[in-house]
Amino acid sequence: MSKTIIIGGSFAGLSCALQAKQLYPDMEVQVFDSQETVGFIPSGMNLVLNHEVDQLEAASFISEKEVRAAGVQLYLGHQVVEVDMKAKWLRAKNLKTQVITDYPYDQLVLAMGSKQTGHLVAHLDHPAIISTKDIGSAHHALEVLEDAGHVVVVGGGQIGIEACEALVNANKQVTLIEANDSLAERYFDPDFVEEIEAAIEIVGVDLRVGSKVASVETDPLRVILEDGDEIYADAILMGVNLFPNSSLVSDQVELNPDKTIWTSPYLETSVTDVFAVGDLVQVPYADQGRDFIALVNNAIRSGQIAAFNLKENRVKQATSLRVIGSRIFSQYVVSVAKTEHEANGTSAQPVQTITVTADYSLTDSTPVYLKLITEAETGRILGAKMRSESNILTYADTLALAIGQGLTDQELAFQDRLYYPLETVANPIIYRAALESYAQRVAK
Amino acid sequence: MSKTIIIGGSFAGLSCALQAKQLYPDMEVQVFDSQETVGFIPSGMNLVLNHEVDQLEAASFISEKEVRAAGVQLYLGHQVVEVDMKAKWLRAKNLKTQVITDYPYDQLVLAMGSKQTGHLVAHLDHPAIISTKDIGSAHHALEVLEDAGHVVVVGGGQIGIEACEALVNANKQVTLIEANDSLAERYFDPDFVEEIEAAIEIVGVDLRVGSKVASVETDPLRVILEDGDEIYADAILMGVNLFPNSSLVSDQVELNPDKTIWTSPYLETSVTDVFAVGDLVQVPYADQGRDFIALVNNAIRSGQIAAFNLKENRVKQATSLRVIGSRIFSQYVVSVAKTEHEANGTSAQPVQTITVTADYSLTDSTPVYLKLITEAETGRILGAKMRSESNILTYADTLALAIGQGLTDQELAFQDRLYYPLETVANPIIYRAALESYAQRVAK
Repeated sequence: MSKTIIIGGSFAGLSCALQAKQLYPDMEVQVFDSQETVGFIPSGMNLVLNHEVDQLEAASFISEKEVRAAGVQLYLGHQVVEVDMKAKWLRAKNLKTQVITDYPYDQLVLAMGSKQTGHLVAHLDHPAIISTKDIGSAHHALEVLEDAGHVVVVGGGQIGIEACEALVNANKQVTLIEANDSLAERYFDPDFVEEIEAAIEIVGVDLRVGSKVASVETDPLRVILEDGDEIYADAILMGVNLFPNSSLVSDQVELNPDKTIWTSPYLETSVTDVFAVGDLVQVPYADQGRDFIALVNNAIRSGQIAAFNLKENRVKQATSLRVIGSRIFSQYVVSVAKTEHEANGTSAQPVQTITVTADYSLTDSTPVYLKLITEAETGRILGAKMRSESNILTYADTLALAIGQGLTDQELAFQDRLYYPLETVANPIIYRAALESYAQRVAK
Repeated sequence: MSKTIIIGGSFAGLSCALQAKQLYPDMEVQVFDSQETVGFIPSGMNLVLNHEVDQLEAASFISEKEVRAAGVQLYLGHQVVEVDMKAKWLRAKNLKTQVITDYPYDQLVLAMGSKQTGHLVAHLDHPAIISTKDIGSAHHALEVLEDAGHVVVVGGGQIGIEACEALVNANKQVTLIEANDSLAERYFDPDFVEEIEAAIEIVGVDLRVGSKVASVETDPLRVILEDGDEIYADAILMGVNLFPNSSLVSDQVELNPDKTIWTSPYLETSVTDVFAVGDLVQVPYADQGRDFIALVNNAIRSGQIAAFNLKENRVKQATSLRVIGSRIFSQYVVSVAKTEHEANGTSAQPVQTITVTADYSLTDSTPVYLKLITEAETGRILGAKMRSESNILTYADTLALAIGQGLTDQELAFQDRLYYPLETVANPIIYRAALESYAQRVAK
């Protein structure tokens, strides 16, 4: 009976553990995590502030009980302090008892994820500089926020925008600082987020796009911008990019320049029988090589795939299309793959972009906007962006499948789809956009 | 300037007309229809009975005004009585004035659709034998239903079931007669519709599955079953299969044995410059050759495709996967491609079926059921069936794209998709089902 140890009990680690137990019922599968719970959803703090769940413990994609019922052994509150990949054991400290124990393994899966930090605050240890990625820091953040009147959110990507809305819902005065000239630039071209930026300002948020943070200072707590402005804050929430949490093993496995762990197409590291998953690894991105893309959907899939590969190379790492969807300030947004800007910068041929508007359905005339980005000659779809006040999130999966399969606008235009009068318009927007994109190319 | 005439102003005809005007702005496009309105949705009567729209006129996917604004010339209330394909003209009667006029054309598109009839009632001309496919008959049906206490619905496919629910909502006593041993057998295996059949009986419908109609008699109006039962009715609604309405041209174009019009892969008939679309033609079905599949999504696509091909062969007729979705008796159902029974009867290799159940989302624990039917050796997906009390209709498009692109369970399992905690579970059901299907094959 072989034994697999997984370091990290978030999406990637647990997905790997559960899949491994299903595939190899005789395998001993142990998961180590320094947190006292498993399955915390990184945006859990927002769910609480938005009153969408009662408490952080409910912001969980799986319970400890379910994991144990699947036969996975959980070592919670255990911090792994050392790994010996030659001798195949690791050393973990029970954070309650401080007892240190060594655990042997046959296969090791690294799933320590990423951490929410940044060079600006990495040297500071101030209680009012909050982050929300694990349940411990989210609990602390909620405590700090109880007495905070003004909160500065640094970073206007998905994390920052969603946190900003939750803080507004919790009646905080919020300043949102984004270094780029528009919000969520990795996902949306500026024209597509204008209405969202307007909605954010209407509710009273002090929105600072194109504002670079020069430094964060304490006593009193404040953010100093490169243009000299000083913004005082009762709390600062770091919504900036995540960084791979690879330091535990950085002297034993090969790293990429961005501190992710190098992996084979089958997610094995440079050390045999040691795998890495989730935010620790780079992901194949569209047709653009590999990148660090810290998204839950990547974490889950990489964990599952590593499980399939524990005994033999079976499944190659899956491609990411940076699929995101969210409801922010009453607007649903969806992004799959490239923006127009990104496509123009990376495509070997000219790029064609069309934007179409359609009613949501027969009985709901809420407009839906879709921007479809294609190669002008072949019609291959490079990216799709949607926005509406009605719920368009499930379109993300269809668009991801179309782009992931390399479909052209023509192929998508005539693909079979559902017609149901109360829920869809006669020619639903994604097929209509594809049709118009194709017609535009035919006309040329 | 060339002129295209389209006979029939329903989904296929109008889709063709609108697409033609967009592609060829200089083309004169005329649509003839004997009805006085365009764009009627065949299930419009149900929408009225369910109070989902106020009146039949609102059950329209496009208005006359919108069609005219696009530059299409509408000849409503005009019945085409003769076509001369050699001389390229047609003769139409204005039903109000009875004036007959001849109209020349360069290209002709046949879009007369299908009619709701059956050999049992084709010889009867009784006002209380109702159908609902066009707005005229739907108006008549609503009048008849006002005074009807007991309605017999013949045919337990999608049309019959949806009508049955609408009639129950309108406080009618309903008998639903289906010749097969379970409802909607073309779309669902018996195990999948058991709960729906139970729900139909709970609301008081007299459900007769496995009951063949021997004859329909009048004075008094009644249905006589093959087992001898006589069911008296104030109205009989024919929810039976549709038949192509090809008689106008049956002596001029080649027909298939099922009375559909033969077409090339580009939807041209046996006569040059004459195209046929919608319910008049057979559709490529999955990997199973061609079939008569009277669905709106096929009609729309064939109309659009014919428009692209009016001047040169550009787009081949699109494949159908018989995609349907509906909400019937508080259950949402989705069907894409084959049932297990159908797959077993047509697949060259053994068939693997798995059924998975999952919560709808983090905050909605309503169960969702998915049955995934695959080739046991390759894992290629042959069919997918879903059911839930929560709305799963939009999954239909993703499943259709996956099956349409010939994906295997493994490919779908690791396809990128949306993760959004309030709307999706960590591993949404279609990917989870694909994963379990793949894992089951790996285990063998």
